[in-house]
Amino acid sequence: MPASLPDFVRDLLSRMPRSCEASLEAARARQARLTKPAGSLGRLEEVAVFFAGWQASPEPEVKRALVVVFAANHGVAQKGVSAYPASVTAAMVENFAAGGAAINQICRSAGLELKVFPLSLEDPAGDITEGPALSEAEAAAAFALGMKAPESAPALLCVGEMGIGNTTAAAAIYHALYGGAAADWAGRGTGISEAGHARKIAAVEAAVALHKPYLSDPLEVLRRLGGREFAAMAGAILAARMRRIPVMLDGYAVCAAAAVLHALNPAALDHCLAGHLSAEGAHAEVLRRLGKKPLLDLGLRLGEGTGAALAFAIVKAALDCHAGMATFAEAGIAGRDEV
Amino acid sequence: MPASLPDFVRDLLSRMPRSCEASLEAARARQARLTKPAGSLGRLEEVAVFFAGWQASPEPEVKRALVVVFAANHGVAQKGVSAYPASVTAAMVENFAAGGAAINQICRSAGLELKVFPLSLEDPAGDITEGPALSEAEAAAAFALGMKAPESAPALLCVGEMGIGNTTAAAAIYHALYGGAAADWAGRGTGISEAGHARKIAAVEAAVALHKPYLSDPLEVLRRLGGREFAAMAGAILAARMRRIPVMLDGYAVCAAAAVLHALNPAALDHCLAGHLSAEGAHAEVLRRLGKKPLLDLGLRLGEGTGAALAFAIVKAALDCHAGMATFAEAGIAGRDEV
Repeated sequence: MPASLPDFVRDLLSRMPRSCEASLEAARARQARLTKPAGSLGRLEEVAVFFAGWQASPEPEVKRALVVVFAANHGVAQKGVSAYPASVTAAMVENFAAGGAAINQICRSAGLELKVFPLSLEDPAGDITEGPALSEAEAAAAFALGMKAPESAPALLCVGEMGIGNTTAAAAIYHALYGGAAADWAGRGTGISEAGHARKIAAVEAAVALHKPYLSDPLEVLRRLGGREFAAMAGAILAARMRRIPVMLDGYAVCAAAAVLHALNPAALDHCLAGHLSAEGAHAEVLRRLGKKPLLDLGLRLGEGTGAALAFAIVKAALDCHAGMATFAEAGIAGRDEV
Repeated sequence: MPASLPDFVRDLLSRMPRSCEASLEAARARQARLTKPAGSLGRLEEVAVFFAGWQASPEPEVKRALVVVFAANHGVAQKGVSAYPASVTAAMVENFAAGGAAINQICRSAGLELKVFPLSLEDPAGDITEGPALSEAEAAAAFALGMKAPESAPALLCVGEMGIGNTTAAAAIYHALYGGAAADWAGRGTGISEAGHARKIAAVEAAVALHKPYLSDPLEVLRRLGGREFAAMAGAILAARMRRIPVMLDGYAVCAAAAVLHALNPAALDHCLAGHLSAEGAHAEVLRRLGKKPLLDLGLRLGEGTGAALAFAIVKAALDCHAGMATFAEAGIAGRDEV
């Protein structure tokens, strides 16, 4: 890791690989030959072509998909912004290890690998209403750790998180990046009361006001208002890009890390799909700003990468149809008979 | 099969089994104990509870799911209402047998069984603009064949169809059941031209006008405006209900068969889920009238049961989470900490 995270990130962003145009074209041409009316597989066609571009192959494959879950704690949780105590973060990490969480079941049944990264749970990020979430060294370390996530070279990286208090941090990131009012971005998280929601809005407002002078730099937004899992997720998403590995984004918190990269360079998320529309807060508005249309809309608001992992089924179906369907010529089927 | 299909169907509708209230309650109570904020798995929770009710078990399972595809031909295809020639129906049935269609890939990768029923392809249903689609005997035979679909007792029955010209028949069924104008219900099907679309609208209008005196009876709508696959699908859906087997509806044509049952008895589809929102015609309006919220919205308009089969992934995840997740007590996790 270089001394300066900002310089390092900006250097990577300046030399991101792009999707392969020739493979996109070849995949589109194959889709037009498959035994179905043109366009009738809708977003499955779009997803197959997307993978073709990033894998630089007209017949992309997803042999291994990996879900990474970054877990961290937040000083701002002490401000009563969550319906659950901060101790739940560590308890849920144990639950992941024991196979008892929702993400374990989804990964098991869909054949996804799961890797959980607990990030210094005993050392919460600083309370963002009182100071920066992370020091420069802490942010750089978390980012570097996140960059290891795609090291095993999965064909798809699903990014998830767990952290009591982290929808407050996510809301602060959005408020800093996109303006508006704190109330526009602070949702009900794990299902907080009216009074707790008011405290959450106040915390988001106070945090953005406190750090205001530094927030024109998206990387300062990430360091000051985020926390370890946000820095790690940004690292994971960017590292996947450098390896041309498509990323499936999960919900509200994951997209906050993605939004930081997007604010630095709007092309930074070209390798990302939005797994789902979360029921949390203003996720629809976030996706609109990121230019992403979610694959699923199931009213989830759990995190853990659950929405991203569920969307893997759509990717698998898309690539299996793309690779396995017969062409009109192969099947000896008459083409269109338009009069 | 009794002499009179209408009497037989009305008898079944009068003694349909219902969802088990005690199991619904037990499943809801279990959902509240699992290690996640209440409601945070959104529609996955709803689907798990739905299966609990129909299986009359607080921990439902889906060991085997079956996709049935009913294929048939339509005399109205001669009126130039499809972008493809009628010979494509039989060719696609061969493609299903050879494993080359989209539904084959989706079934294979998701672990669904697939069974295709070609229904007298050499003998198209009558041209609905000139007479009834089916005789009473033909309708009864197709309905009876459809009733065999759930005979192997799968835990979920996904219903699909294939038939050149059948979105014209579906549109006529909706126009007859729901009124409005023919143009409200006639979509672009496999992707027909402007001129073909005008012919399709004219055919729907002519068919409904011709049969008008008989269309107050939904079973006459089915027989006169549908075709063999519609009668078979209605039979399959109703037979599944008698066995308490949940049904996953596919798109525009499948829902037309379902809409006939719904028109006979609004409770007839209580065991059905809407797999997806199709891009065909007025499917959103149809689902609204049936009171169904689709699980997926991926811009599909292929038929073959593809949308229903894709939605199986959501069912699987829902039941796996319901059965496999730890409770707060099992995981030793603190509950809500609301102030």
